[in-house]
Amino acid sequence: MAPEKAVVLLDERVSPFGQRVRIALAEKGVEHEYREEDLTNKSPLLLKSNPVYKKIPVLIHNGKPICESLIIVQHIDEVWVHGSPLLPADPYERANARFWADFVDKKIYDSGARMLRYTGEAHEEAKEEFLENLKLLEGELQDKTYFGGENFGLVDIAFVPFTTWFYTFEFYGNFSIEEEFPKLVAWGKRCMERESVSKSLQDPLEVYELLAYLIKKKYGKV
Amino acid sequence: MAPEKAVVLLDERVSPFGQRVRIALAEKGVEHEYREEDLTNKSPLLLKSNPVYKKIPVLIHNGKPICESLIIVQHIDEVWVHGSPLLPADPYERANARFWADFVDKKIYDSGARMLRYTGEAHEEAKEEFLENLKLLEGELQDKTYFGGENFGLVDIAFVPFTTWFYTFEFYGNFSIEEEFPKLVAWGKRCMERESVSKSLQDPLEVYELLAYLIKKKYGKV
Repeated sequence: MAPEKAVVLLDERVSPFGQRVRIALAEKGVEHEYREEDLTNKSPLLLKSNPVYKKIPVLIHNGKPICESLIIVQHIDEVWVHGSPLLPADPYERANARFWADFVDKKIYDSGARMLRYTGEAHEEAKEEFLENLKLLEGELQDKTYFGGENFGLVDIAFVPFTTWFYTFEFYGNFSIEEEFPKLVAWGKRCMERESVSKSLQDPLEVYELLAYLIKKKYGKV
Repeated sequence: MAPEKAVVLLDERVSPFGQRVRIALAEKGVEHEYREEDLTNKSPLLLKSNPVYKKIPVLIHNGKPICESLIIVQHIDEVWVHGSPLLPADPYERANARFWADFVDKKIYDSGARMLRYTGEAHEEAKEEFLENLKLLEGELQDKTYFGGENFGLVDIAFVPFTTWFYTFEFYGNFSIEEEFPKLVAWGKRCMERESVSKSLQDPLEVYELLAYLIKKKYGKV
């Protein structure tokens, strides 16, 4: 079936990367067709649209596919220029936003996923890195409303879906994110006051159930 | 010692990531102070400017540090808007350029480095991935002059420093990149006709000597 709307999102509800795109589309009020992918049986359209990674999310805009969530969010900001920009106007601030959004992928997601996956020493190492990375991120946030100051933007969009993983991180890591990083937790709550965020994120307990199932199935870890 | 010029580059000659920044600065004709870092004894300025990764290259612009080579190249394009742009004007083409530049980091560099590092089955797996990734990249290039068409830009800058690694990849991988990917090799030669590129890249044999030394020292592989 060919896409009918000008904007089609190939996605999967629980994906934090997909949630980024949904938040950005909601912030800009972009009407689109949402297509839920079954990741155990990917659609021909997904395989054709993202032949390199074969992953969601993919935004198909006027028939042309765009892949990789942070690239999609920047694309949305560049195409739908009405409303509040998702990237700052100042070039230095733009570079800084790109740096921290990239940091969420390279460091936070990576160390968090290893902490969930591994046991023993590898788990402890990943946990230490993960907490160190959250500390760096909280250091960047400081007492600002959002990462970009008063404006909700790229870094918020990059990280806020992972707040739905906090419960799972705490369960497997045996620590309290709220106790150790109160500013990050307060920031997450502020983000949830935005409809674009609250309607895009999943319930942390549902995320936990899915991740626990996958961790047990893939790595035999309970 | 505090930076004296408005633009200071903390770099290391052989780094492909540093070379990207040097090419971009040369394309835009940006006067700057080049500071060679000793990576076995990093300067206080580097550690202060890139506390997260502690890596070169770092571009310090009016006292503010910018890290991560692809982010720096985009920053240079956004600040020095004279001359030929490094990113296309069309939003879809911009997203596509970001995708393939990111692909060079995520897939080409990663699989190439693993191929160099490992022996046995892990080496063979990485080699297969590496060749598959070069094939995808050549498929994106096709018969175009540069990745962006007639305009030299982000993807060219991201990948061209790795052409100086071709000799090393061939040596350890036991294949001929020229035979398997003639279009990529021809593209590399076209890029080398630009002064911005030829003055920034290192001699492939020097790269080989350094990498062979590091591979032997770190992984005991000859």
